[in-house]
Amino acid sequence: MNVAIIGASGYTGLELIKILINHPKFNISYIANSSGEMNVQDLHPCLKNVINIDVDLANALEVSKVADLAFLALPHKTSMAFAKELLELGVKVVDLSADYRLELETYEKHYCEHTDKEHINDAVYGLPEYFRDEIKNAKLIANPGCYPTASLLALLPFIDHIDTNAPIFIDAKSGVSGAGKNPSETTHYCQINDNVHAYNPFKHRHMPEIHEKVRILKGKDVSINFVPHLLPLTRGMLVSVFATLKDDIDVNEVLNNAYKDCEFIRIREKPVDVKSVAGTNFCDLFTAKNGKALFVSSAIDNLLRGASSQAVVNANILCGYEEYEGIPKIAYVP
Amino acid sequence: MNVAIIGASGYTGLELIKILINHPKFNISYIANSSGEMNVQDLHPCLKNVINIDVDLANALEVSKVADLAFLALPHKTSMAFAKELLELGVKVVDLSADYRLELETYEKHYCEHTDKEHINDAVYGLPEYFRDEIKNAKLIANPGCYPTASLLALLPFIDHIDTNAPIFIDAKSGVSGAGKNPSETTHYCQINDNVHAYNPFKHRHMPEIHEKVRILKGKDVSINFVPHLLPLTRGMLVSVFATLKDDIDVNEVLNNAYKDCEFIRIREKPVDVKSVAGTNFCDLFTAKNGKALFVSSAIDNLLRGASSQAVVNANILCGYEEYEGIPKIAYVP
Amino acid sequence: MNVAIIGASGYTGLELIKILINHPKFNISYIANSSGEMNVQDLHPCLKNVINIDVDLANALEVSKVADLAFLALPHKTSMAFAKELLELGVKVVDLSADYRLELETYEKHYCEHTDKEHINDAVYGLPEYFRDEIKNAKLIANPGCYPTASLLALLPFIDHIDTNAPIFIDAKSGVSGAGKNPSETTHYCQINDNVHAYNPFKHRHMPEIHEKVRILKGKDVSINFVPHLLPLTRGMLVSVFATLKDDIDVNEVLNNAYKDCEFIRIREKPVDVKSVAGTNFCDLFTAKNGKALFVSSAIDNLLRGASSQAVVNANILCGYEEYEGIPKIAYVP
Amino acid sequence: MNVAIIGASGYTGLELIKILINHPKFNISYIANSSGEMNVQDLHPCLKNVINIDVDLANALEVSKVADLAFLALPHKTSMAFAKELLELGVKVVDLSADYRLELETYEKHYCEHTDKEHINDAVYGLPEYFRDEIKNAKLIANPGCYPTASLLALLPFIDHIDTNAPIFIDAKSGVSGAGKNPSETTHYCQINDNVHAYNPFKHRHMPEIHEKVRILKGKDVSINFVPHLLPLTRGMLVSVFATLKDDIDVNEVLNNAYKDCEFIRIREKPVDVKSVAGTNFCDLFTAKNGKALFVSSAIDNLLRGASSQAVVNANILCGYEEYEGIPKIAYVP
Repeated sequence: MNVAIIGASGYTGLELIKILINHPKFNISYIANSSGEMNVQDLHPCLKNVINIDVDLANALEVSKVADLAFLALPHKTSMAFAKELLELGVKVVDLSADYRLELETYEKHYCEHTDKEHINDAVYGLPEYFRDEIKNAKLIANPGCYPTASLLALLPFIDHIDTNAPIFIDAKSGVSGAGKNPSETTHYCQINDNVHAYNPFKHRHMPEIHEKVRILKGKDVSINFVPHLLPLTRGMLVSVFATLKDDIDVNEVLNNAYKDCEFIRIREKPVDVKSVAGTNFCDLFTAKNGKALFVSSAIDNLLRGASSQAVVNANILCGYEEYEGIPKIAYVP
Repeated sequence: MNVAIIGASGYTGLELIKILINHPKFNISYIANSSGEMNVQDLHPCLKNVINIDVDLANALEVSKVADLAFLALPHKTSMAFAKELLELGVKVVDLSADYRLELETYEKHYCEHTDKEHINDAVYGLPEYFRDEIKNAKLIANPGCYPTASLLALLPFIDHIDTNAPIFIDAKSGVSGAGKNPSETTHYCQINDNVHAYNPFKHRHMPEIHEKVRILKGKDVSINFVPHLLPLTRGMLVSVFATLKDDIDVNEVLNNAYKDCEFIRIREKPVDVKSVAGTNFCDLFTAKNGKALFVSSAIDNLLRGASSQAVVNANILCGYEEYEGIPKIAYVP
Repeated sequence: MNVAIIGASGYTGLELIKILINHPKFNISYIANSSGEMNVQDLHPCLKNVINIDVDLANALEVSKVADLAFLALPHKTSMAFAKELLELGVKVVDLSADYRLELETYEKHYCEHTDKEHINDAVYGLPEYFRDEIKNAKLIANPGCYPTASLLALLPFIDHIDTNAPIFIDAKSGVSGAGKNPSETTHYCQINDNVHAYNPFKHRHMPEIHEKVRILKGKDVSINFVPHLLPLTRGMLVSVFATLKDDIDVNEVLNNAYKDCEFIRIREKPVDVKSVAGTNFCDLFTAKNGKALFVSSAIDNLLRGASSQAVVNANILCGYEEYEGIPKIAYVP
Repeated sequence: MNVAIIGASGYTGLELIKILINHPKFNISYIANSSGEMNVQDLHPCLKNVINIDVDLANALEVSKVADLAFLALPHKTSMAFAKELLELGVKVVDLSADYRLELETYEKHYCEHTDKEHINDAVYGLPEYFRDEIKNAKLIANPGCYPTASLLALLPFIDHIDTNAPIFIDAKSGVSGAGKNPSETTHYCQINDNVHAYNPFKHRHMPEIHEKVRILKGKDVSINFVPHLLPLTRGMLVSVFATLKDDIDVNEVLNNAYKDCEFIRIREKPVDVKSVAGTNFCDLFTAKNGKALFVSSAIDNLLRGASSQAVVNANILCGYEEYEGIPKIAYVP
């Protein structure tokens, strides 16, 4: 199937290109970014001798002529405008932005006015382990945020076993690629190296995303208290979930049962680390308890399972291919 | 006053030397390690053209002839054997190991049999903000662990305002120097770089230390649930404390009141970072709340405030000097 | 074709496994290390859900029953003992150690006594761009060292244009994975992070390897002066070659002509960097001159082009497959 | 003596503040940057509880009322305009920019038109080991560049022993703080981490600075061929000098003789590393030879010996103080 990548300049755009180059079923027929008119090798010199294709200025009509499905790696707001056009032209969309992840009211509270109210309710939240059936029939997939992916996969299996009146705490730790490619004071090497700090504690926009999906899936209005940290590493994310158990359960059994047939989830007996999942679509999980206290540690690659490879898994499901087709499971990471 | 440093080879030994070289009141009269018979410049080449002194094999009698106070930067168990000898010879001791930090029963449960039952009850826990008066009259100071230092300074001001039936969660993040100087698979560069993982979740020996000190100071038996992580940075520690508030308090006011005259504690309005305290004795604190959920973030240099500079602050107090004499407040850190 | 990997525990062993898992022509039929009797997933937890195969104690007879070709990722000296056995049993060998890289006399001067004098002269030096024809007919391939690979690819095109009476200087910079997986004082995170230093200046054993290959290929006895450095990065190598030009040549033209049909060499117009080649088999080259002064900068992944992927390229050529079959050209690197 | 710091926002400005806070003879009476009207603690939060002083908009007349000497940590071109004003008001100047480092013609060729031709010839090049006598009587000191400091200290002792017809090669490796505090694509964490590359090969403006100083001091017009590299570390610089010896000299003896009474130069028997000098004013040197090939390795802290602490050493000499007064010799670096 021919696919388009819209938004090829950023980190997630590059990862989409890298995954789709080697994909046995998808063929990249169109690449666009906001400047256009260059070869993809000028945009990403690491692609020299690998792929030779022009990058265009994004044009929905052109996309609809050459592709059946488009991956959008665009900024919030820009994305819904373009998605709307594509959907009206009959192109299926996997959107990596936040634009279709939330219910309308929540979106407008935390982001901005929504300009595609026509399609927002049709969007399926692309967390395959929990929405596989809906994804199969979707025309528009909202690819989850990186923090919600790691947090929900850790938390959801335990919701029925925890005291949902007590606060749930999530201490998340992300590599710098999560902050995007634009240079800023925050991402200056000298500011990150040998350093670590929290940011936006209890105020990050992924907090309502986690809260909403728990409510939708489990029917419970829990207290999610989310504190992200920026770490001196490029790629990878480790999320600690802390909650109060109400039963004396076997926490490993809960995890193993929840994910027993899941290709891309690995339950570990030792604490998980970021390096074992970097460059792959895996989510590694570890859990432990101390009396009523529950700890779940979740490791993903923020750019892959937290964005681009999860997007291609969603596309695989939507197109009826095997979930794992062309999805990275090993990596030549440092 | 002449002082001895016993255990000069490790990271905390080197930091003690660096602080005491420039200290206006203390004079290093004796340095020992387990091999002895070398110049300190051979042990630490960075000290060439800085200090020229021999390193001996540790001998308590020799120490007692040339020093009035000794800093012990020795492994657990070795330390109490040597401290006992020194105390019997009338030398005051600041012990950086765990040997005198805990009550006897707790110590023997988490470490090993204690071989200096004579002095363990005389030891004063060297957290200056909470034990200043006791330190003034001490002969033996148990210098706190790095994690307990950062955790207690964050947690103690809030104990009266939190629901102590609910679990308190501590997600701690340490630089690799906290793991010591001995090479191991864990501390290999390729294992740490671009990586992050929890270790000993709910099982680290600093967990009972935090629990015990809260009980002693506040009379409450709280549920401390401690999960340390190893981060790709050399020096520094960031600790997140999560708890459930029982009152609708002004969390910043609580912190500001608790530490209003404290030279080495800085309450921040933005989330604290490790780089601002690296190379100093400062503990920087930040707090935020979300409904009942409390977050306190605490940053220290694990080798200084978490070990060597706090030891010298304790010695300053014990000797009647100003608390800040010769203590690093700025650093030429990366 | 069925292949064996002997020496699966180290970094290059793991990279061989990762490349060969996805190789369209080779099938891993045997994996061994020095402890044996475990699943490969216990050895390398990142391989969970990826490959399920037992690791045995290395046994040449068993190898010969199930594989036609073996990759040896063993320490020097151990390797030649095992290679000898395999060759006598008719198994082809790609040896990643130094044991067959040098002429006998040079080897014994810089390493130790050679115990397989029978086969040392049959070995082909596996630098594909210069020994392709010999590799096609080889039974034993000596895979080049990482530093010689990067250095020779940069230097060889210029040998006819430089003053070979003047010293040639090579300032090489390697990631820490080049030092191997064993923990040591040198590879401790705290020793590497924020640091850089030369080691073995003018004394590294890759210096005679570079010298010998220039002599064999170009018939000139040049003065190679090699200084390696250890850098705070896990994977990757950057080599600066400095020499004195005797003619006023177009240095870019020289490089472009030398490698015009080479799949895995990319001539760059801007200085090359390690990140663009990490995780791939590419060697990126850049050159500049200043009067008589020549500079060539060469970037490779020390574990792939400097070891494991070059080994598989050699195996591809030896087996008559396309050189690029199953060889990584893109990577999900940080 | 009262001193002013002009240009307090950047890295070298902060280092000047940190050194001068603890200096026994200098007192900071004035700090300025280009925005002004803030407390220095707002500019550099690490200075909270350390120094409490206002930052003004730079005004030469105000400086002249409260200070006898000014350190200028300003961009090229801005610096000469301000220095001119100060000198005319009788304030002595230590200038950390490039504006007075070069002879007029060289400056204008590599930078821009010079607008203070009146004072450029009075400037003394502040490399203390070679210009101590001139510094004593100077009114205007041009503080050397970081690369020239490390390169000249390594190269100058050998000039009489090398073949000055042969190219001299300098392969320099710098931490990222050398690129300044402004965010850019080049200094983004994800671009630097796990990466290394050359930049401006044979074209960096420190190349003519090295060339000129060798000519002035040694009367020889040598061929300096300089290639800087950017490394994944914050602070520190390692410079490799490669040259062709004309005599069979004892290279260690040459170095030891050249610097036998130099407080801040340490000749090492093992290759030097950046970590041993980080946070100090030391320059560590190592040398080796291989036949005619000479290697000298030089390590400095680029922000201290390469900028701010060398500036204070120059001020010490100029004011008749001991060279080492208040100069950092140890550091609490990672």
